[in-house]
Amino acid sequence: MEFSLSRKLVAEALGTAILVGVVVGSGIMADKLSDDTAIALWGNTAATGAILAVLILILGPISGAHFNPAVTLAFRLRGEIRTSAALAFMAAQCAGGIFGAVLANVMFDLPAVQFSLTARTGPSQWLSEAVATFALLAAIFGCVRFRPEAVPYAVGLVITAGYWWTSSTSFANPAVALARGFSDTFAGIRPIDIPGFILVQFLTAAIATPFFGWLLAEKR
Amino acid sequence: MEFSLSRKLVAEALGTAILVGVVVGSGIMADKLSDDTAIALWGNTAATGAILAVLILILGPISGAHFNPAVTLAFRLRGEIRTSAALAFMAAQCAGGIFGAVLANVMFDLPAVQFSLTARTGPSQWLSEAVATFALLAAIFGCVRFRPEAVPYAVGLVITAGYWWTSSTSFANPAVALARGFSDTFAGIRPIDIPGFILVQFLTAAIATPFFGWLLAEKR
Amino acid sequence: MEFSLSRKLVAEALGTAILVGVVVGSGIMADKLSDDTAIALWGNTAATGAILAVLILILGPISGAHFNPAVTLAFRLRGEIRTSAALAFMAAQCAGGIFGAVLANVMFDLPAVQFSLTARTGPSQWLSEAVATFALLAAIFGCVRFRPEAVPYAVGLVITAGYWWTSSTSFANPAVALARGFSDTFAGIRPIDIPGFILVQFLTAAIATPFFGWLLAEKR
Amino acid sequence: MEFSLSRKLVAEALGTAILVGVVVGSGIMADKLSDDTAIALWGNTAATGAILAVLILILGPISGAHFNPAVTLAFRLRGEIRTSAALAFMAAQCAGGIFGAVLANVMFDLPAVQFSLTARTGPSQWLSEAVATFALLAAIFGCVRFRPEAVPYAVGLVITAGYWWTSSTSFANPAVALARGFSDTFAGIRPIDIPGFILVQFLTAAIATPFFGWLLAEKR
Repeated sequence: MEFSLSRKLVAEALGTAILVGVVVGSGIMADKLSDDTAIALWGNTAATGAILAVLILILGPISGAHFNPAVTLAFRLRGEIRTSAALAFMAAQCAGGIFGAVLANVMFDLPAVQFSLTARTGPSQWLSEAVATFALLAAIFGCVRFRPEAVPYAVGLVITAGYWWTSSTSFANPAVALARGFSDTFAGIRPIDIPGFILVQFLTAAIATPFFGWLLAEKR
Repeated sequence: MEFSLSRKLVAEALGTAILVGVVVGSGIMADKLSDDTAIALWGNTAATGAILAVLILILGPISGAHFNPAVTLAFRLRGEIRTSAALAFMAAQCAGGIFGAVLANVMFDLPAVQFSLTARTGPSQWLSEAVATFALLAAIFGCVRFRPEAVPYAVGLVITAGYWWTSSTSFANPAVALARGFSDTFAGIRPIDIPGFILVQFLTAAIATPFFGWLLAEKR
Repeated sequence: MEFSLSRKLVAEALGTAILVGVVVGSGIMADKLSDDTAIALWGNTAATGAILAVLILILGPISGAHFNPAVTLAFRLRGEIRTSAALAFMAAQCAGGIFGAVLANVMFDLPAVQFSLTARTGPSQWLSEAVATFALLAAIFGCVRFRPEAVPYAVGLVITAGYWWTSSTSFANPAVALARGFSDTFAGIRPIDIPGFILVQFLTAAIATPFFGWLLAEKR
Repeated sequence: MEFSLSRKLVAEALGTAILVGVVVGSGIMADKLSDDTAIALWGNTAATGAILAVLILILGPISGAHFNPAVTLAFRLRGEIRTSAALAFMAAQCAGGIFGAVLANVMFDLPAVQFSLTARTGPSQWLSEAVATFALLAAIFGCVRFRPEAVPYAVGLVITAGYWWTSSTSFANPAVALARGFSDTFAGIRPIDIPGFILVQFLTAAIATPFFGWLLAEKR
């Protein structure tokens, strides 16, 4: 099956929009309903993990279901997507992501465009983002190599774990990090802290890609 | 495999009855056991997502496992079901759904027939229902197209996310919306608010169906 | 593959022992750790649903993984197991179940043999058990018919929902009901209330079996 | 597919590092966010079960994804790995595990190397570890025998249940037990209590291996 570039870009934008809509919207709902932050994080986690599996199941066959510029960079480094298409993918992901954040704000009767005040910075947060991006790429590369039909579930599960084991709650995605700046709610991130996250995510992709290239190569 | 229309209608009624029974019953249980509304919503979510996967696994091969007039409308628009059968499906879904709400009331020793007092109305709720119905149809159309064996899990997961990321908690189903009017408990909806929900759900199905018809079409 | 009767009986006893061990043990753990009964029920639910999927995956190919005299009765009514083997299955299930309850008590440093004081009786509880047993058999018969490889997941999911949507929390199993009488903890049931539960469960199996025989039969 | 020993050892070290990172890290996160220990245990559980499925999906085809010296011992007893490779596996697992605990400490801005003060000892804890290790090996041996593609999910699910039904929360892994000594947080274990856990885990592997060898053998 081969889909036109326009359908691929719509798939990337739509998928990232729904992903960010779920991340932000479930954060608002969870935070509103509970006084216990762990419960709120669980509502946020379950919704995010669930929708990731669905989005990859339904849009993966069209565009590859990256929804993530760091993933698109990794596939560019592996030579599986052209530079021009990769840049268009990234633009679609960012636009879709911001739309998703705005949509979540509006669904919960909040001002459509906001800027988050939640500080997320410092070495332990950056280390967390490196670890989170590395784990996400491990799940993707490993499943693509051995069990491609399991990618949707593996990505949903690796992010489910990521919300809890990294101190940053695993953004692991430059487009999502950018979009989460547009909602001053549970899942938000202060705009000034976004570049640090994005830099770490891209750098990790650049390092993880050749590492898994080696690890996953069969013995001759 | 081809099943008789009577079996199909029983499957639609039975499936919608159990679905609504779970939505309403788990809402009652969760609300009774917890003071934290997020925990209650999680009990409600997990039960609903789980039973949806089961019901589609076991009844999908008989009737297609719509359990939802908006889904039946979508398949009618795609020309995959005849008008007379579609109307019979919708009647079976509504009857089954109301039976399920009554069953849940009785299992928890409450008056069998009640009318909910929970207001669910206004633009942000209607937007939420449009988004929820769109996401549900995305899951169904995408999986039917690419991975039909994953439909049960995708639908369970998209509703799991839906309970948290939309402010209406994703009814996304006219028969379920109607039936939830018959229980004045956690999952209820005030009868006067039901037509607004149903209208948005049907309208979204009418718009989403041609959109996904385009998106999921291969390049020639 | 065909396994000897002795292996089948060991599989039934072992599976029911682990199942009851999880039901009772996770109830003790959850109740000890939380003041919120809904959270406790969620810990109990997640552990039970998870282990059911595992036990059916690993023991299903040996004995069919009934772990449940009502399921064994249903397969007897369908003529898929002989009376003598069915009775031996039921004995193994009851013995294994009681062993599992005792094991859970001992793992949590409680007296090995106890008798529960938790009342579970009355029409709404019995109706709940009928509904729970019917839903369990629907999951089993439907998946065996259409998607046998999904039985482990469907049974885990139907019980996950069952804990929340029925007021009895879905025992749906005479051997488990009997065994849960032996622990005066979260998952317990007063011995005097057990016969009522067991009667409803067997009766429901007797009614559900021919109903699904009709529903699942293809059109000629 | 056959991978070089160096890749296998990297896979075992990397997998155990991420596993322990998730166990320890999610314990820190959960404990920090909640006052309710059952909620904290659920965050810990969900993250651990999810990452186990992912790690086995992606690293299983390289090294077998043991991440656990008791599992490596079991495969040695079955004659499926040579003694020298088994010892190298165990060393890689322990080194990876300790690295994972340190990584979790650092991600949460805690001192990198710590020693836990959490007592976990006594007959009921040891019985719990025997039961937990037995259940883990049942899941592995049963799925390897009948449904190898389900191993990742079965292991994730058996540990999900294990956190709740055993009083020790199912370490069931000597390398993980050792590594958890290096973090004085939610998932920690006092170093003096580690040898007792490890001894029980290895002994259980030695007993469970021939038992399942018998149970899983077909009738001739």
